[in-house]
Amino acid sequence: MRQRNLSLVLHTLAAEGPLSRAAVAARIGVTRAGVSALVEELLRLDLITELGPGRPGTVGRPGSALALNENGPCGIGAEVGVDHLSVCAVDLRGKVVARIAVDAANRGRAPEPLLAELGRLVTAVAAEAESTGLRPAGLTVAVPGLVARGTDTVVRAPNLGWKGVEIPALLDPALTARLPVTVDNEANLGALAELWLAPTPVASDFIHVSAEIGIGAALVVDGALLRGAHGFAGELGHVPVRPEGPDCGCGGRGCLEQYAGEEAVLRASGLAPEEEAGRHPGPGARIALLAERAAAGDARVRTALEEAGTALGIALAGAVNMLDPGAVVLGGALAGLAPWMLPALEAELGGRVADPARTVRTEVSAIGADGPLLGAAHSVVHTVLDAPASYASPLE
Amino acid sequence: MRQRNLSLVLHTLAAEGPLSRAAVAARIGVTRAGVSALVEELLRLDLITELGPGRPGTVGRPGSALALNENGPCGIGAEVGVDHLSVCAVDLRGKVVARIAVDAANRGRAPEPLLAELGRLVTAVAAEAESTGLRPAGLTVAVPGLVARGTDTVVRAPNLGWKGVEIPALLDPALTARLPVTVDNEANLGALAELWLAPTPVASDFIHVSAEIGIGAALVVDGALLRGAHGFAGELGHVPVRPEGPDCGCGGRGCLEQYAGEEAVLRASGLAPEEEAGRHPGPGARIALLAERAAAGDARVRTALEEAGTALGIALAGAVNMLDPGAVVLGGALAGLAPWMLPALEAELGGRVADPARTVRTEVSAIGADGPLLGAAHSVVHTVLDAPASYASPLE
Repeated sequence: MRQRNLSLVLHTLAAEGPLSRAAVAARIGVTRAGVSALVEELLRLDLITELGPGRPGTVGRPGSALALNENGPCGIGAEVGVDHLSVCAVDLRGKVVARIAVDAANRGRAPEPLLAELGRLVTAVAAEAESTGLRPAGLTVAVPGLVARGTDTVVRAPNLGWKGVEIPALLDPALTARLPVTVDNEANLGALAELWLAPTPVASDFIHVSAEIGIGAALVVDGALLRGAHGFAGELGHVPVRPEGPDCGCGGRGCLEQYAGEEAVLRASGLAPEEEAGRHPGPGARIALLAERAAAGDARVRTALEEAGTALGIALAGAVNMLDPGAVVLGGALAGLAPWMLPALEAELGGRVADPARTVRTEVSAIGADGPLLGAAHSVVHTVLDAPASYASPLE
Repeated sequence: MRQRNLSLVLHTLAAEGPLSRAAVAARIGVTRAGVSALVEELLRLDLITELGPGRPGTVGRPGSALALNENGPCGIGAEVGVDHLSVCAVDLRGKVVARIAVDAANRGRAPEPLLAELGRLVTAVAAEAESTGLRPAGLTVAVPGLVARGTDTVVRAPNLGWKGVEIPALLDPALTARLPVTVDNEANLGALAELWLAPTPVASDFIHVSAEIGIGAALVVDGALLRGAHGFAGELGHVPVRPEGPDCGCGGRGCLEQYAGEEAVLRASGLAPEEEAGRHPGPGARIALLAERAAAGDARVRTALEEAGTALGIALAGAVNMLDPGAVVLGGALAGLAPWMLPALEAELGGRVADPARTVRTEVSAIGADGPLLGAAHSVVHTVLDAPASYASPLE
């Protein structure tokens, strides 16, 4: 109960910014005395600060305004991409205080050296955050693969070539001794970033589609991720689009990834995926190339993107008929290709969604490719806001 | 809090049968004195009864065993089928105490006469239940169409030809004055029946597929229905199977219903749906005909059912990849055709689900075509068990 009320105060300050004790009491329906006790504990835990008395605009009785502590705990997010590694630190107010990204050829790379490199980047970002007075509270790692529910094990990440990799066990013990580590699918974290950080909030029920090399999706239902019985929900890339279509690495045929995955689009554009990967390495480089050529009017690229949009629309029509989301959000690298994919995608959705009276809102993420990394760091921040006392217990 | 504890006592008795006060106290973690007060209130509300002292097998201090009152409130369920109307009454212990079913040609029938007939059947079943001492607590109506979330309006029921029908407003006012009415999609209620009544409980996350004339599905996630933003989730029948396939009444092309719906299967079996509907009217009659011919070795019918199983498997593979359920349950009329559809269905699922290591459990419902009707009546019983005090308030 107390934990819940502490969390309520923090979430109120996160949502509405600096507020007086009286304003917090009014917002959460607790007495002034009750709020004062909660505030004392949160100050002691270093989770909030007082901005000093007489702040203009404060509602109710004059008093010092309270705010989340921008010099308290911070969340560290990391992303293992197929062609990059990124790490960032985010303070309780959501500001990115440190960030590193490096190009890396991770396809087929063994987990040990990859995670050793990632560990060094995390250590560097954590040191940077600490130098400004922040205390890293945890690390969440975004991976392009399936993570078994309730574990930190990557069951399968085909584009890395990983199977059964337990990430925390392979990170530097000096790091994991200091930082609790959690692992999640990049599409899930991208959807959480959309839910938490979108400048215009999306619906509380939406399908978030993202792409790096593969195509992933995440389902948000009533404001929470739908993870599935095993944690594997959201495998949009393997929804059959044309059941007699080309073989897919997953064992199926005619999966969406065979029509709208990066390699398929490069090939349909007359480009050789392997050559282009050598010529344009790094995160999003081939997507940027496609966007550039489409913008320049390259008919072959435009047709390839239109066909990818059609395939994505067919797969999403099935998903929308089954799930009835409030919106479909194109995020990740797909956001940059939206101008050429969206018309075909929307035509399929419009024609194939069972109730013609119902329009399915499609939106392009304003967060785009940063989603998984920001979602990872913010998920640590949310852990602190959700359970402030249990977060703080290791310190005492 | 008190409402919650009253409900907890009722659900404990529903799940475990007669128990002493001491056993109830131990199960729900409340003091003996606390349980006694709750029990007094539930006895007063006529929701439970004492079976008398000294019942053998009672745990703890000797004392009279408590049970749900089989002569208290009951739930009335009704089903509007395309070719039948059914009504039943279920007591708090789940026993069906009265039941009526009539064949009816409801395709294209206006809502007013249909609901007048349904109202007469409900009145008859309610009278029958009352004659045994039960008090009808509410009516839930199952419909083969989309019901807007939070309303009792059928937005669209293509096989009835209905659009925008607000059911309670069209029922006999003498009936609705006595009975609170709710309306839900038949597939949703079938899935709830599976969740509540299956002899072997299914997973808490499953996709329930059912069919009468159309094909519907319902999604159960963490033990609750996923209704979708507008209440329209579960439209499996309109998931694209072959995107360039035949036109569908929904406006799309190549929807699952075009391959595995009753009419499609009759046609593929060399039968004319309209003629057969005349020759074999009534609920499930054509499905029974198909099952009979398949059992007799009719090759054309067997091939038609196998192809329907393949199409269902393709659509479900997409849904399983997106939702990662613990099981897929074939319910409704489909349960009777499972022997001829399941092998092809399972072959598609096995080949197309992204993680080959993960087996998707497929099950055939033991409840079958009775699911929607039983789910409707039990959903009233659950309303009583969930909120005993607010249910009782109109009586006081």
